[in-house]
Amino acid sequence: MSAIRQTPSKTLMLFSGRAFPELTDEIAGHLGVTPTPTAAYEFANGELFVRFEESVRGCDAFVVQSHTAPLNTWLMEQLIMVDALKRASAKRITVVAPFFPYARQDKKHRGREPISARLVADLFKTAGANRLMTVDLHTAQIQGFFDGPVDHLFALDLLVAHVCERWGDRDITVVSPDSGRVRVAERWTDKLGGVPLAFIHKTRDPLRPNEVVANAVVGTVEGRTCILVDDMIDTGGTIAKAAETLFEAGAADVIVCATHAVLSGPAVDRLKNSRVSEVIVTNTLPIETSRRFDKLTVLSIAPLLARAIKEVFEDGSVTSLFDGAS
Amino acid sequence: MSAIRQTPSKTLMLFSGRAFPELTDEIAGHLGVTPTPTAAYEFANGELFVRFEESVRGCDAFVVQSHTAPLNTWLMEQLIMVDALKRASAKRITVVAPFFPYARQDKKHRGREPISARLVADLFKTAGANRLMTVDLHTAQIQGFFDGPVDHLFALDLLVAHVCERWGDRDITVVSPDSGRVRVAERWTDKLGGVPLAFIHKTRDPLRPNEVVANAVVGTVEGRTCILVDDMIDTGGTIAKAAETLFEAGAADVIVCATHAVLSGPAVDRLKNSRVSEVIVTNTLPIETSRRFDKLTVLSIAPLLARAIKEVFEDGSVTSLFDGAS
Amino acid sequence: MSAIRQTPSKTLMLFSGRAFPELTDEIAGHLGVTPTPTAAYEFANGELFVRFEESVRGCDAFVVQSHTAPLNTWLMEQLIMVDALKRASAKRITVVAPFFPYARQDKKHRGREPISARLVADLFKTAGANRLMTVDLHTAQIQGFFDGPVDHLFALDLLVAHVCERWGDRDITVVSPDSGRVRVAERWTDKLGGVPLAFIHKTRDPLRPNEVVANAVVGTVEGRTCILVDDMIDTGGTIAKAAETLFEAGAADVIVCATHAVLSGPAVDRLKNSRVSEVIVTNTLPIETSRRFDKLTVLSIAPLLARAIKEVFEDGSVTSLFDGAS
Amino acid sequence: MSAIRQTPSKTLMLFSGRAFPELTDEIAGHLGVTPTPTAAYEFANGELFVRFEESVRGCDAFVVQSHTAPLNTWLMEQLIMVDALKRASAKRITVVAPFFPYARQDKKHRGREPISARLVADLFKTAGANRLMTVDLHTAQIQGFFDGPVDHLFALDLLVAHVCERWGDRDITVVSPDSGRVRVAERWTDKLGGVPLAFIHKTRDPLRPNEVVANAVVGTVEGRTCILVDDMIDTGGTIAKAAETLFEAGAADVIVCATHAVLSGPAVDRLKNSRVSEVIVTNTLPIETSRRFDKLTVLSIAPLLARAIKEVFEDGSVTSLFDGAS
Amino acid sequence: MSAIRQTPSKTLMLFSGRAFPELTDEIAGHLGVTPTPTAAYEFANGELFVRFEESVRGCDAFVVQSHTAPLNTWLMEQLIMVDALKRASAKRITVVAPFFPYARQDKKHRGREPISARLVADLFKTAGANRLMTVDLHTAQIQGFFDGPVDHLFALDLLVAHVCERWGDRDITVVSPDSGRVRVAERWTDKLGGVPLAFIHKTRDPLRPNEVVANAVVGTVEGRTCILVDDMIDTGGTIAKAAETLFEAGAADVIVCATHAVLSGPAVDRLKNSRVSEVIVTNTLPIETSRRFDKLTVLSIAPLLARAIKEVFEDGSVTSLFDGAS
Amino acid sequence: MSAIRQTPSKTLMLFSGRAFPELTDEIAGHLGVTPTPTAAYEFANGELFVRFEESVRGCDAFVVQSHTAPLNTWLMEQLIMVDALKRASAKRITVVAPFFPYARQDKKHRGREPISARLVADLFKTAGANRLMTVDLHTAQIQGFFDGPVDHLFALDLLVAHVCERWGDRDITVVSPDSGRVRVAERWTDKLGGVPLAFIHKTRDPLRPNEVVANAVVGTVEGRTCILVDDMIDTGGTIAKAAETLFEAGAADVIVCATHAVLSGPAVDRLKNSRVSEVIVTNTLPIETSRRFDKLTVLSIAPLLARAIKEVFEDGSVTSLFDGAS
Repeated sequence: MSAIRQTPSKTLMLFSGRAFPELTDEIAGHLGVTPTPTAAYEFANGELFVRFEESVRGCDAFVVQSHTAPLNTWLMEQLIMVDALKRASAKRITVVAPFFPYARQDKKHRGREPISARLVADLFKTAGANRLMTVDLHTAQIQGFFDGPVDHLFALDLLVAHVCERWGDRDITVVSPDSGRVRVAERWTDKLGGVPLAFIHKTRDPLRPNEVVANAVVGTVEGRTCILVDDMIDTGGTIAKAAETLFEAGAADVIVCATHAVLSGPAVDRLKNSRVSEVIVTNTLPIETSRRFDKLTVLSIAPLLARAIKEVFEDGSVTSLFDGAS
Repeated sequence: MSAIRQTPSKTLMLFSGRAFPELTDEIAGHLGVTPTPTAAYEFANGELFVRFEESVRGCDAFVVQSHTAPLNTWLMEQLIMVDALKRASAKRITVVAPFFPYARQDKKHRGREPISARLVADLFKTAGANRLMTVDLHTAQIQGFFDGPVDHLFALDLLVAHVCERWGDRDITVVSPDSGRVRVAERWTDKLGGVPLAFIHKTRDPLRPNEVVANAVVGTVEGRTCILVDDMIDTGGTIAKAAETLFEAGAADVIVCATHAVLSGPAVDRLKNSRVSEVIVTNTLPIETSRRFDKLTVLSIAPLLARAIKEVFEDGSVTSLFDGAS
Repeated sequence: MSAIRQTPSKTLMLFSGRAFPELTDEIAGHLGVTPTPTAAYEFANGELFVRFEESVRGCDAFVVQSHTAPLNTWLMEQLIMVDALKRASAKRITVVAPFFPYARQDKKHRGREPISARLVADLFKTAGANRLMTVDLHTAQIQGFFDGPVDHLFALDLLVAHVCERWGDRDITVVSPDSGRVRVAERWTDKLGGVPLAFIHKTRDPLRPNEVVANAVVGTVEGRTCILVDDMIDTGGTIAKAAETLFEAGAADVIVCATHAVLSGPAVDRLKNSRVSEVIVTNTLPIETSRRFDKLTVLSIAPLLARAIKEVFEDGSVTSLFDGAS
Repeated sequence: MSAIRQTPSKTLMLFSGRAFPELTDEIAGHLGVTPTPTAAYEFANGELFVRFEESVRGCDAFVVQSHTAPLNTWLMEQLIMVDALKRASAKRITVVAPFFPYARQDKKHRGREPISARLVADLFKTAGANRLMTVDLHTAQIQGFFDGPVDHLFALDLLVAHVCERWGDRDITVVSPDSGRVRVAERWTDKLGGVPLAFIHKTRDPLRPNEVVANAVVGTVEGRTCILVDDMIDTGGTIAKAAETLFEAGAADVIVCATHAVLSGPAVDRLKNSRVSEVIVTNTLPIETSRRFDKLTVLSIAPLLARAIKEVFEDGSVTSLFDGAS
Repeated sequence: MSAIRQTPSKTLMLFSGRAFPELTDEIAGHLGVTPTPTAAYEFANGELFVRFEESVRGCDAFVVQSHTAPLNTWLMEQLIMVDALKRASAKRITVVAPFFPYARQDKKHRGREPISARLVADLFKTAGANRLMTVDLHTAQIQGFFDGPVDHLFALDLLVAHVCERWGDRDITVVSPDSGRVRVAERWTDKLGGVPLAFIHKTRDPLRPNEVVANAVVGTVEGRTCILVDDMIDTGGTIAKAAETLFEAGAADVIVCATHAVLSGPAVDRLKNSRVSEVIVTNTLPIETSRRFDKLTVLSIAPLLARAIKEVFEDGSVTSLFDGAS
Repeated sequence: MSAIRQTPSKTLMLFSGRAFPELTDEIAGHLGVTPTPTAAYEFANGELFVRFEESVRGCDAFVVQSHTAPLNTWLMEQLIMVDALKRASAKRITVVAPFFPYARQDKKHRGREPISARLVADLFKTAGANRLMTVDLHTAQIQGFFDGPVDHLFALDLLVAHVCERWGDRDITVVSPDSGRVRVAERWTDKLGGVPLAFIHKTRDPLRPNEVVANAVVGTVEGRTCILVDDMIDTGGTIAKAAETLFEAGAADVIVCATHAVLSGPAVDRLKNSRVSEVIVTNTLPIETSRRFDKLTVLSIAPLLARAIKEVFEDGSVTSLFDGAS
């Protein structure tokens, strides 16, 4: 006999970076698995070490990391995890990055800048990632930065459902905080049944193009409940300023919706002290208790990620998770 | 003596695809060179053949092609030219694609779609291109699709100068024809000294997301001269519909500006028959005499391309050609 | 429990470009499958769009395209299909190109030419193809242009069987229409039981090497039925001229055999008006009714392709399909 | 129905280069398989030819070669086998190189040298190898030269077991023959229960750094049985000289242990004529009868390789084969 | 005229990461250049941004970063700088990493570990680095991890010169702190004219291989001044323990020499409180004033790096900087 | 000042493998250079070592090797030389392989064979070669196996000139020894002013396709001086058999011409003992004195190679060396 013949099996294994293990645990719970035991620590000089404590040969690996601060550390940890999986003969490696790091640097805004989002996609590939899974990319074009399949999930339905339930009886206008995200806001108006759309127009001095000299609302907001939508809230400056401009323009109320709660620096204070009624986000990034506040609602992204991982593993169709939008 | 030592020289050579040789000739005129003599023809079954009639060894090659219909033929011709240059020892190869083909398919709008713009960038790389030069990409993120330097030029100053000269005394509102390009229109408002900004809001039925059920103007257009700006005019449907909506909303006049005059199918008729006063475009794509009409103004992109090619060859700074924008 | 374990399944899916869907349908019939429903169309400026209407995750994809005119369009369509499959997580992608495009440009005939056949192989690879399947390459070396498995099938048995049945009682000489394909003709002589072999010798003026000044038959053809064999009939010029030369040399009859019926430009007229008794080809390329003529016999290549696809999917041995020849 | 769905099977196939087929046969025996019948021969000018005589489509291929002299011939044969497997659609290809060729050239010792071990790793990758399996690399860092999984096996337990059985009652000191392998010798001391450790210190003239001017023992060897350990014995010069130095320093006895028995040139004579009591090696390389001698003990590496191959095929954990060492 | 011909020029430009700009400034001073003005900062969530403020087209770029804590931040910054240089048409990019990050993870110590040093080399390559320059790699094999030229410099002469000047009249023994670096220590003995060599032998329990149960000196140290040499001092644990063991074994004095002063965690206290007379290091890594102490001597590595950069730019021979060592 | 600016120089350096240094010396003489001093030797187990004894930084390197037996050794030596050049910062590396090894395995003749010629091209690329230079490839398609420029030179003019001088007054027929090389022979007929063309037709039993059962001349040879042309003479079997067949068919005389004198095994005896009047070859491969014989004429290929190297270095046009042929 010249060969051994067997029926193969395939195995889903879940791996968690140390940035936000609670999210991986929640995903694991939905999937009915346990994250693979992993030794991971940082040497005194900042070098990271990772070792898996179970065999990963032949597995279909999903490596979940949440890219919160210290972001470069968590990115490097995920790259090292992927390298270790590749060298340990994992069959397929999917990087799960609910918040894709460096997504805002998706083009050269001026000459001699990097395109860091492409760089990150290439770093994942180099380390050994076969696939990416992510939620609400800053721009959908980033899918094209990765040379392989990208499962791009949307939190839109999750957020809209919450808005409808709590604010569905109001006269709503959807507002984009700047001219660059009006298309995304337009998608909200369709989901909300054709409500009006507005955006904040920023005027710049052509001689100092990075300096905004005035904010103006374009569209109808007077007397209306404005749903101010963005992909992320970082320092909260844009959002707080936009809310203020809306109130000045006569808005009755302002609700803030964003998928990624970066909430860095003064964000929490700005939002807490604003006249905004609710700030609705998901947990693609961890939010410590100390940074939570009354008006903040955090919806869990874990069920969506768990469903998508399951479909990828079983070769089902994740398209059903998109609901047709880009 | 164990080696031969010499002072090298570097040589700029210009190559022209057959789609729009007049553009290359114009660029060549500005540079003071002649396009390299090239034999190129199509076999009866559609296969293309290219051969350069002068040595190209060690040259700094710029391969200009204009991606008009039959677009795939011209794309393939340019790939074949790059392959021939690579195999003939050109030192560096820059693809000059004033209109980047397939730029609109820069993301998966829905599942199981290609990202053709990334594919095109990869095809250029595979054929042997070291660099890309292009004008007004549909989205700036496409720069990141190419693994190498991209010189992304802007026609904005050229178009604005013409608008100012001819329509500068009017009360202008800049209008984006849809929600996805408001940011680009905003850049116009800054160039025009802080004029108002508006856009056309399309309402879709969530159950049939690809079907627009209504168009509404968001922003102030009544009694104003609307500068309707887009990156390209393809069939002219969006633009004509937008112009109509603007007039319905009380616009005094509508001027259309776009970098890329695809002008396919019914475009010419739609624009000719519209109430638009002027349609201003550049010649990144050829426009045959039969498709020209009174209201159409074609500005030449050749001087900008010539300057950029010269700076690339001489290692100057093309950033000065951007004027700080993205 | 730390992992989900399952028994995987594998799925053969067939995809058809729009160049010649009838061929794919015929292959599908032999396999007992239906080509995957696919939306595909061309925008007014020539850009192509493709979307699969069923999930393709994890499938073993066979993408059939027939590279007829407009050849570059169909090539690009196939590349875009492969890109879409890659990004939609197909497990393995086999490009089925019964007629490999640009196969004649398989070397630099002179300096500063492309090697377009290698370029095409690289484009398939870049788009995401893992494997190639093709029939009767212009030269077998093209297999080596692709960095991966190539299933190179032969129509020889199919053609020989037909010749034997219809012309087997004649005194046959196999003739190569030029000096470059005598080896292929020799393979026919073996299949036909050791019949004589001849070829057409073209004399060129060394000062004008691309110009043929005379045609002469080398070998015995007087009074014999000549089977004139080639891999393809393009404009039919070479074949018609060869047939004429054979009749001048005293041939009793001439039968033309070729795998690929490009039949471009004047080919149909040339063959129809020639004294050739039968032209035998396969349907690796579509032949519209208007280009069919009495003497033309079209044998179907679909059963061979279907068998090969089945063996590839089931990891059987396609070598049995070659019958030992290259 | 649009697709064919099946349950896949996976197949282990073993391939043997011609350098040392007995080793592959022994591995095959342990696995219960037969090496795949392969036609392989050398043309008169040294070019090699390989053809597999059974279908290898979809198989999990293990290609065993032993890199003995003529080493470059056997290396090239293995590369050609891998190329043939890749082009014949093997699913996964593991190069089994019990003695990794060129491992000593793992760095530039001086400027303008190659790093041949990295080159070899890259050649395997280029030919199509997905994985490597090897035994006792000259330095463990060579694992990192290959871009993919490497199963690095250790003969330590095998050698230690033999030493314990035969020489376990002696007063042992483990000795490294030079300063570069003391760490490896230290691992032996741990396995042998904490016995002393020594090494040979070579003094060089700083003006002639490649010339050793003196050998000195550092550590306690007087009256003790010295286990002189190295990864390989090539010409035996270092080992013979080290043994001599140990006897001069008062060693009671010297036992030589090494994984790889290169035994080239004068090695056999040097060892036979030395005062060493036993030379213990494995059969990672073939040792013809004519080069065997009384004091030589050859332990078989086949059981270890067979176990590792089986675990790789079955996605088991090869880590158990390492026993915790590097 | 069909081409423009010019004599090219080449330009050396120096770029500095923010980890240790003083080192770059010192190198720049030796070269007679100014580091290129660069805007670099960290967003609130940890994302980094870099932009060069002068044209870098066609330059020969040297990007200096010192990989101190927060190490992953500085590594990512350097990768982003390289990406920006690549996209801005730098002609050649050399990463200067005086201390190569993750060098200790240069192999899998056990199964399912990463090889992070190879990963880092690949990340540099992916970002766009053409070459690497570094000092005293943890193991010289790491050169082979990079697919391109590596200039591996040595601080040995610098350190030896200082030792000779200050301690040259003592009876010196060179000591390696563990069994893995005896070869490096041996190189010191040659430089110091053939002085004795010793090392610390660590005994481990085979059942708990990561736990050292005893330290013993192998070699002669009694009454001698021990030069304890290592490539780096991280937490200082190994070095402090080794020094203690040497004093217990009767050493008259202990001097510590190491190229890389990581000095993390308790390192400063351990060394300050030890009986060691001098700790000699270089400034491949920054050492803040607060971590400096009386016994610490810091030699500058800048002259060596400046000379090497100059020779690389001018195509001179860096081999002269190695002085024959590996 | 922020940068150092210089005028670069470029340097041609010639490197010689050890297979046939006399050829490199002859090329060097024509160029007026000396081959770079290189230390190269073989370790006892067959591993090769190479080190260049002068700096090669920034040079334009030409690495000449002649692929004679032991062919795999010389191939590996050349790969190692290229690797060393790459790591030592050579600017451009051209592999000069006058006889391209493994050229006959340029396709899969049957299933499960390698395509070794493509493998060799890829190995050169992997090692670091940027370009290839070679003479009279077995098939011109092999150019397309290398991903980069290939300078494919022809010995045709050299051989024809000799034939004309010595045999120009005879009635010549050019003969191809088999059906696969008739096209090459046809090129000779044009160079010789339109002389007749013939070939040897081999009949095979379809059941045993590798066995030739009969040889027959196709074409007119009676009473004529036959110039039997091939790319190489290996064992001489085909050529000797062809010559015999020609004499049997009434040839007056037979002259053998081939570029590559492999002359392995019985070749010399076969040719010496044949009735052939002259055997004309070049020195792309070394021919030791012991294998030379009276009828053998060896023309030097060195002037052609030297001219081509010079043109490549100076960016001249090598096309002039082809004389229009493929």
